[in-house]
Amino acid sequence: MNILAIGAHPDDVEHNCAGTMAKFAKQGHKVFIATATSGNIGSATHSMEEIARIRKEEARKSAALIGAEYICLDYDDEMFFESKEARLRFIDLVRYCKADVILTHNETDYNPDHELTSKIINDIAVMIPIAHLKTPNPPYDAIPKIFYFEPARSLGFIPELFVDITDEFETKKAMLRCHESQFAWMHDNYSGTEDAGDLISHIEIMGRFRGMQSGVKYAEGFRRANDAFRQSTDRVLP
Amino acid sequence: MNILAIGAHPDDVEHNCAGTMAKFAKQGHKVFIATATSGNIGSATHSMEEIARIRKEEARKSAALIGAEYICLDYDDEMFFESKEARLRFIDLVRYCKADVILTHNETDYNPDHELTSKIINDIAVMIPIAHLKTPNPPYDAIPKIFYFEPARSLGFIPELFVDITDEFETKKAMLRCHESQFAWMHDNYSGTEDAGDLISHIEIMGRFRGMQSGVKYAEGFRRANDAFRQSTDRVLP
Amino acid sequence: MNILAIGAHPDDVEHNCAGTMAKFAKQGHKVFIATATSGNIGSATHSMEEIARIRKEEARKSAALIGAEYICLDYDDEMFFESKEARLRFIDLVRYCKADVILTHNETDYNPDHELTSKIINDIAVMIPIAHLKTPNPPYDAIPKIFYFEPARSLGFIPELFVDITDEFETKKAMLRCHESQFAWMHDNYSGTEDAGDLISHIEIMGRFRGMQSGVKYAEGFRRANDAFRQSTDRVLP
Amino acid sequence: MNILAIGAHPDDVEHNCAGTMAKFAKQGHKVFIATATSGNIGSATHSMEEIARIRKEEARKSAALIGAEYICLDYDDEMFFESKEARLRFIDLVRYCKADVILTHNETDYNPDHELTSKIINDIAVMIPIAHLKTPNPPYDAIPKIFYFEPARSLGFIPELFVDITDEFETKKAMLRCHESQFAWMHDNYSGTEDAGDLISHIEIMGRFRGMQSGVKYAEGFRRANDAFRQSTDRVLP
Amino acid sequence: MNILAIGAHPDDVEHNCAGTMAKFAKQGHKVFIATATSGNIGSATHSMEEIARIRKEEARKSAALIGAEYICLDYDDEMFFESKEARLRFIDLVRYCKADVILTHNETDYNPDHELTSKIINDIAVMIPIAHLKTPNPPYDAIPKIFYFEPARSLGFIPELFVDITDEFETKKAMLRCHESQFAWMHDNYSGTEDAGDLISHIEIMGRFRGMQSGVKYAEGFRRANDAFRQSTDRVLP
Amino acid sequence: MNILAIGAHPDDVEHNCAGTMAKFAKQGHKVFIATATSGNIGSATHSMEEIARIRKEEARKSAALIGAEYICLDYDDEMFFESKEARLRFIDLVRYCKADVILTHNETDYNPDHELTSKIINDIAVMIPIAHLKTPNPPYDAIPKIFYFEPARSLGFIPELFVDITDEFETKKAMLRCHESQFAWMHDNYSGTEDAGDLISHIEIMGRFRGMQSGVKYAEGFRRANDAFRQSTDRVLP
Repeated sequence: MNILAIGAHPDDVEHNCAGTMAKFAKQGHKVFIATATSGNIGSATHSMEEIARIRKEEARKSAALIGAEYICLDYDDEMFFESKEARLRFIDLVRYCKADVILTHNETDYNPDHELTSKIINDIAVMIPIAHLKTPNPPYDAIPKIFYFEPARSLGFIPELFVDITDEFETKKAMLRCHESQFAWMHDNYSGTEDAGDLISHIEIMGRFRGMQSGVKYAEGFRRANDAFRQSTDRVLP
Repeated sequence: MNILAIGAHPDDVEHNCAGTMAKFAKQGHKVFIATATSGNIGSATHSMEEIARIRKEEARKSAALIGAEYICLDYDDEMFFESKEARLRFIDLVRYCKADVILTHNETDYNPDHELTSKIINDIAVMIPIAHLKTPNPPYDAIPKIFYFEPARSLGFIPELFVDITDEFETKKAMLRCHESQFAWMHDNYSGTEDAGDLISHIEIMGRFRGMQSGVKYAEGFRRANDAFRQSTDRVLP
Repeated sequence: MNILAIGAHPDDVEHNCAGTMAKFAKQGHKVFIATATSGNIGSATHSMEEIARIRKEEARKSAALIGAEYICLDYDDEMFFESKEARLRFIDLVRYCKADVILTHNETDYNPDHELTSKIINDIAVMIPIAHLKTPNPPYDAIPKIFYFEPARSLGFIPELFVDITDEFETKKAMLRCHESQFAWMHDNYSGTEDAGDLISHIEIMGRFRGMQSGVKYAEGFRRANDAFRQSTDRVLP
Repeated sequence: MNILAIGAHPDDVEHNCAGTMAKFAKQGHKVFIATATSGNIGSATHSMEEIARIRKEEARKSAALIGAEYICLDYDDEMFFESKEARLRFIDLVRYCKADVILTHNETDYNPDHELTSKIINDIAVMIPIAHLKTPNPPYDAIPKIFYFEPARSLGFIPELFVDITDEFETKKAMLRCHESQFAWMHDNYSGTEDAGDLISHIEIMGRFRGMQSGVKYAEGFRRANDAFRQSTDRVLP
Repeated sequence: MNILAIGAHPDDVEHNCAGTMAKFAKQGHKVFIATATSGNIGSATHSMEEIARIRKEEARKSAALIGAEYICLDYDDEMFFESKEARLRFIDLVRYCKADVILTHNETDYNPDHELTSKIINDIAVMIPIAHLKTPNPPYDAIPKIFYFEPARSLGFIPELFVDITDEFETKKAMLRCHESQFAWMHDNYSGTEDAGDLISHIEIMGRFRGMQSGVKYAEGFRRANDAFRQSTDRVLP
Repeated sequence: MNILAIGAHPDDVEHNCAGTMAKFAKQGHKVFIATATSGNIGSATHSMEEIARIRKEEARKSAALIGAEYICLDYDDEMFFESKEARLRFIDLVRYCKADVILTHNETDYNPDHELTSKIINDIAVMIPIAHLKTPNPPYDAIPKIFYFEPARSLGFIPELFVDITDEFETKKAMLRCHESQFAWMHDNYSGTEDAGDLISHIEIMGRFRGMQSGVKYAEGFRRANDAFRQSTDRVLP
């Protein structure tokens, strides 16, 4: 299968589904990682152009660790809005990846870029095969299955499906470490919170918590989009 | 009463509330069927202009079977977005119909056009009587009661109210059959699903399922908008 | 694996998960069908003893069609209550079957026998390995995974997992037809409802409805018990 | 129709659905008011036997105001538990009333007697016509429709259906005033709460609040039991 | 602390959280009241410009009663839409107030201006400290805690937190009475509802209802935004 | 205030609210820890009598670390059922403690003893002051406020309130370590799960997870009983 993980910002995928993507890759599936924005406000020291360039480079390195292609749609961080252009751009991205499965943010999350990325992915799922919706890449005859990963801090999120990432956890950490510009930024910008800059500790706790719930050492949790044409009678997840 | 059923695309109303509309009509109420879009991407063989023309003609024929007027707002299929213009256009539609009751899509549905149609209807309900919101048709002094019909495939939908459409089921089938351009289209476009092109079988199953739940042969299920000024102490539905 | 499907009354399993059980059996798993009661009020013409005997014989025939052993706990139909004795009896049943997986009624259902069967199964899941809980059959070191099937008429039920039973649907019908004493009984006792006596039509509609939702011809829907020690990182269902 | 309102204690029905019962009565339906317990702990000054006698007399007077028969099942207040005997006693009560419709406590409420009364009513609904469940009064061929009224203080309750009781509100107050032993008791026993003893003010606030929500002066709110064989395609409520 | 209450229209704050704001003020916190729109459609007799001017003056008077500064963002009533400009304008407002706590509309409410005000506040909470998001007022290093107040008529709203406003209720009434242009307007525009023009009676019922639920004479009810970076281990509310 | 934490088994309180109890104690409140059962099935090597004695001794030591009195109601582990005797026994326990606040299991949990303990506590809350419910300890005039702590593994639980236990975390670990008989037991009995015997690691992960959500190092999460007479306008928790 072709699998696309799309987050709003570089490092969102790494936090929430890198283990599952690594597992998909290991099983021989073709994997893509995309972000809606370049994360171009994510620095107190670099200009917006510089930090965008840096973060995309970090995302590329991270994706490369599992053999994934990284694609950035280059919308403005924190200023991503719905539009016809964005809808077509997302359709084209999915068509480019010929995605059978998409992992994305949960419908309700703490950041509007996250929620909009999730909404557009779900909105366009049924539009992929429609010929009259013209984009650079051609339509294909399938409706991707969609799975929602956890919001940061996971407040209010109840996973329905768990993926064992025990064997992929080191890879997940390595991928997250590629986003080194974000370690200082999170620390500086969200200093009011205890573990602000300690992103590795964050995924360690999350992984162990979901593992404890599902009977393994480390796990990632998901909900499945329960909408017409996106359901199926197989598990899909690895 | 004046009853407006509004869907995003030609044939949405037919699938989900045609039986109830037929029953309202039979009881002497004035009935309107509207669609937000012309359904102008719904063909693999016709141009967008042609299929728009064909589908509106099909919708008109279907509406005529129960003596309903058909109105198309002509937004672009799959590319319908929120705007001041759309909000005013919907206000004007409701004022034109002098609607006491509106049936529309559920708040969560599988298609963004469906969800937006539902959202705008609910958003404008309290704006109908406001004089400073000027539209071609004048304000009137009432806030329509709103009922949500089922999403296609009905995933995640729990109806609160049932309408017995046993005596209207043949009419419902006749109305759906007017949309003949859609039988091939659904078959071609959603070929991955078992009953893709078999729309009549779809409403047969849905009708029987809701009938089984409510103790009649065929039924349609609804949820009521539970918002300020739209609730009441009567059933409203036939 | 060893799979146990347990309902409150003879024919509950047939209505709601016979297709999945048939599929498990076909894949080589060991299958058991049990009922908490003998269904001994289910007749307007036979004595309670007679109808109990008849219904258990029907259940045995039905189970035999997929090579399943049938076990009846012989509680009184409609008069099944919680007790230490019942809890131990259920523990012993599960130990007898050495069940890895249990399919049972949903936590909320329309009948108290259904709900209690479901509750006891979930209550005892973690008690199976406890040595101090002595029963005729010995403890074993596992906590069964639990899946809830649909209530009759499925009001208020939203499945999270679907099983394709297209190839098993004829078997499901054959199993239900074994319960011939129930066809007349349902017709007589629930005559106010349209399809009262037409049980085959009931499962036809349900199967098609869930199939339509999940992209196959016939399906059965389930929810998974989301409790400590019962979750896992695999699908489990066939 | 025959309508039964059943609460756990004398005055529960008066607080939560007396207006609706008065309206049913006014429309010519036959009305019954029952309580599971005699309310025999509800006094700081009378013995349990005395207060039971007083409260049943008060309930009888209240019921008489709308021409309703009052029936007390005489279970112990605060010590009402599930049993075969109770289930049969409730079946017999419903058979005695030949109830088409039952109003009772919500499934979740602040008091265990309330919740158990509600549970038993829902549990036995499908047992009414079963011949093998023998009680003094004979079975009849119907399954009553069930509506849940508000818990005291209404925490966490969201009504789906509203009944206009503007014209019945004076009757409701008169009925509640019959329970004069409770005015002092509530004041003494729940003195920590602002409006402890002021029961009339309580129903005034509740009635106005639900009225405000549904567009009338005074209303009562309900949820409908959404279970197999209890749903229908009519409103049922007055 | 600095506390900002923001509603969509002049008088929204007064209806739903004026008691709590008065209590915050009394305790020495710095209080701000803002509205997204000027309420400029809220009159059948004045021009839009006139009524905007009148309503802002009324809001200023009301705010002054508790020593609060009033700020109007001057969007068009009933025609308030999402945009980059609005997001930045809200960020700037919060930065101007240096808000530690924000009270705003519930996520689901009966009016789209209400819902959008709530959405933007929640969307921008994490953006306050971000230096690259430039607005006239500078960033500060905190993420405000957010509490949602009740929708008008409170349909479907279940508060999690209650504030005792018994001692502030007279102030709340005085604040609402400042909005005198609205008494006639509500009466004229929503004449179909019983208590249309009687806004004081509205808050009386609401205050008593929430007080009854929480054991005081008058209360206001809230839900807390349960999202990353906005939660904490203290109550925050007075 | 007087605070009672009650779990079904020795060590339940330690896992889920020991930090909060330690904090209450530190603030000078009087604290009690109780268990419904003696945990008398919790051993593969000791007899039921022996393990009961051991576990109660462990619980006593743990409670002593924060100056709490330990009380065991001595019901049978895994075989605890509802009864009049149990209800009165719980009333007497609460009266003995003169509890203003009770911390107990969540309403839905993975073990029936947990759920029943929670249910009885909530059931009896309003019965404490009732004179006709006679128990060895006399009634007192208050209704305790109830807070629900997390189920083991926390599946499906969404806390509404967080308590910062950073300074109490070492105490919490010390309390849990008192239950040394359970470390081997959990390891042996639930060996299928990764961290079976590693109870300290379990509370480390839980504490950090809830801390991460609420902006501190370690936290415990709670839900509040939202029922009549138990709500209030203060936070109550430390």
